[in-house]
Amino acid sequence: DKANGKRIPPPVVHYQMNNVTSTSDPEGNRETVLILTPLARFYQEYWDNLLKLTYPHELITLAFIIPKNREGNAATTALQEQITKTQEGAEKKRFASIIIERQDFDPALVTQTEAERHKMENQKSRRAAMSRARNSLLFTTLGPTTSWVLWLDADIIETPPNLIQDLASHNKPIIVPNCFQRYWDPAAKERQERPYDFNSWQDSEAAQDLAKQMGPDDILLEGYADMATYRTLMAYMADDAGDIHTEVPLDGVGGTALLVKADVHRDGAMFPPFAFYHLIETEGFAKMAKRLGWTATGLPNYKVYHYNE
Amino acid sequence: DKANGKRIPPPVVHYQMNNVTSTSDPEGNRETVLILTPLARFYQEYWDNLLKLTYPHELITLAFIIPKNREGNAATTALQEQITKTQEGAEKKRFASIIIERQDFDPALVTQTEAERHKMENQKSRRAAMSRARNSLLFTTLGPTTSWVLWLDADIIETPPNLIQDLASHNKPIIVPNCFQRYWDPAAKERQERPYDFNSWQDSEAAQDLAKQMGPDDILLEGYADMATYRTLMAYMADDAGDIHTEVPLDGVGGTALLVKADVHRDGAMFPPFAFYHLIETEGFAKMAKRLGWTATGLPNYKVYHYNE
Ligand SMILES: Nc1nc2c(ncn2[C@@H]2O[C@H](COP(=O)(O)OP(=O)(O)O)[C@@H](O)[C@H]2O)c(=O)[nH]1
Ligand SMILES: Nc1nc2c(ncn2[C@@H]2O[C@H](COP(=O)(O)OP(=O)(O)O)[C@@H](O)[C@H]2O)c(=O)[nH]1
Ligand SMILES: [Mn+2]
Ligand SMILES: [Mn+2]
Repeated sequence: DKANGKRIPPPVVHYQMNNVTSTSDPEGNRETVLILTPLARFYQEYWDNLLKLTYPHELITLAFIIPKNREGNAATTALQEQITKTQEGAEKKRFASIIIERQDFDPALVTQTEAERHKMENQKSRRAAMSRARNSLLFTTLGPTTSWVLWLDADIIETPPNLIQDLASHNKPIIVPNCFQRYWDPAAKERQERPYDFNSWQDSEAAQDLAKQMGPDDILLEGYADMATYRTLMAYMADDAGDIHTEVPLDGVGGTALLVKADVHRDGAMFPPFAFYHLIETEGFAKMAKRLGWTATGLPNYKVYHYNE
Repeated sequence: DKANGKRIPPPVVHYQMNNVTSTSDPEGNRETVLILTPLARFYQEYWDNLLKLTYPHELITLAFIIPKNREGNAATTALQEQITKTQEGAEKKRFASIIIERQDFDPALVTQTEAERHKMENQKSRRAAMSRARNSLLFTTLGPTTSWVLWLDADIIETPPNLIQDLASHNKPIIVPNCFQRYWDPAAKERQERPYDFNSWQDSEAAQDLAKQMGPDDILLEGYADMATYRTLMAYMADDAGDIHTEVPLDGVGGTALLVKADVHRDGAMFPPFAFYHLIETEGFAKMAKRLGWTATGLPNYKVYHYNE
């Protein structure tokens, strides 16, 4: 940007934001998708699955946020290697652009005390740290021309190849598939699957009542014996004989795979790292989006799969 | 990005976010500043003042969000004209880059009913619309290498030329000068000044008590007779004989001129378009930042001036 030693700034960029659509036919309308992945470890299966997505790769930007520690360095190297292969490989597989951010904040402290309360405290600080990572990634990569944001955790290793088109076809502001995990059942001697993500749920009176008795910084969590929420969990709604496009309304969402119209985020919906209506991170996001006038939808029979360590 | 008809994506962009600083010596450390302006009308005095800022322009990016209506079209044309002049003019005055976004959402509906309650309802929907405009601008322009965000309203027509250096020298996460307005006093036959922005304040017990009696969607507003908050307003703390660098802690901030370390926003601090602890927009932003662990500081004797219609 220098001519005769003079600094020549780039031309002004104008954006007509009403021309940016997010429709049930994103491919037909050439809508851009930003895939956001907080990544602590690199799994080859994640990348392989990503490559198999049939949504036109030239409309997809990938962005990662990776902790600045030794494990993060290893993950960055492994990721960069695959990126190089892909971006220099078959044209159809190349993504429009790729951003890697190394995180500048400390990972959540894990206190070394015992018992349920402390496990819950750890869970809170862990999810607060995750929220900050997600916000940092979101605020710095979302653009004025992004149509959709697909949140995809780094340990999601199997999705239908038409994931983006399938989810977008519902034309919902926020839509989340059901996140399961495959495992080997030694008794039955076969591969089975089980629910993995319990953050997608419909609210209950019991949870509301629990919340009312809580301190302002306390959060509701699923899966703690002394905190029975009686929420209706999408994890348990899956029906293998049912239509994969069955929709259910949700009050909380998980973020392992989550498609969001970019306008929802542009309106201000982020991942609260603090107790927001006693909810945090992706569950707090769903509540915040609701306060902004947007609703969340779940697809109980549409499955994606989480890595099994 | 095509060679032999092949699509060649740009190389991966890596960001080491711990290398992005925001210090008391931003000029010395070559820190980038993003100036964000929601703009409904263009004032030549705003642009002239902007040009006089002594912070190195090559470290400044400007971004505007302008409503998509007739007045917005006129403002865009006037702004674009000045931009062209500046960016083709003296090298030192040229800004690093400039973005103009035309807003895709409807401006707030102004209900046509009467009386105080309705004025307050209008105020709420107006500030909710402003919050969405600010969020949209923020989420789409903040980058991984931005050090500071300066919020500057389009009707701020006079600031000290060292505004950015002066505010940054305090090395605070959020810092706000005192926003005044000049006017002609026909009795005294001279130019006087008066406080303009009442959104920078220290909280009071009375306001907290009012909040406790409110419905979940109600907001506290300054300047309504039937809602006496007894907050300590920075507007009334100005002391012309005092040090311009006198600091006071604040609980609410105005956004006419407001310097924020980019990390505060990257953490997730945005402008709630809904009642957040009974606060909205810039006041809600200060509260949200506090929930994220950041504090706000005011400079009662350091003045900027708002247009007088
Ligand atoms: N950038 C970043 N990513 C993280 C961090 N911790 C976990 N992740 C990633 O965030 C996602 C969710 O974390 P994970 O531990 O899998 O959560 P769980 O499966 O819900 O127990 C995964 O993609 C992780 O790789 C972190 O501290 N920083
Ligand atoms: N993009 C956008 N900017 C607006 C809108 N309404 C006002 N503004 C701008 O936002 C800033 C604050 O609005 P203003 O009406 O001056 O508020 P006040 O001075 O606090 O009463 C100014 O820079 C306005 O030009 C709007 O609907 N959209
Ligand atoms: Mn996981
Ligand atoms: Mn104004």
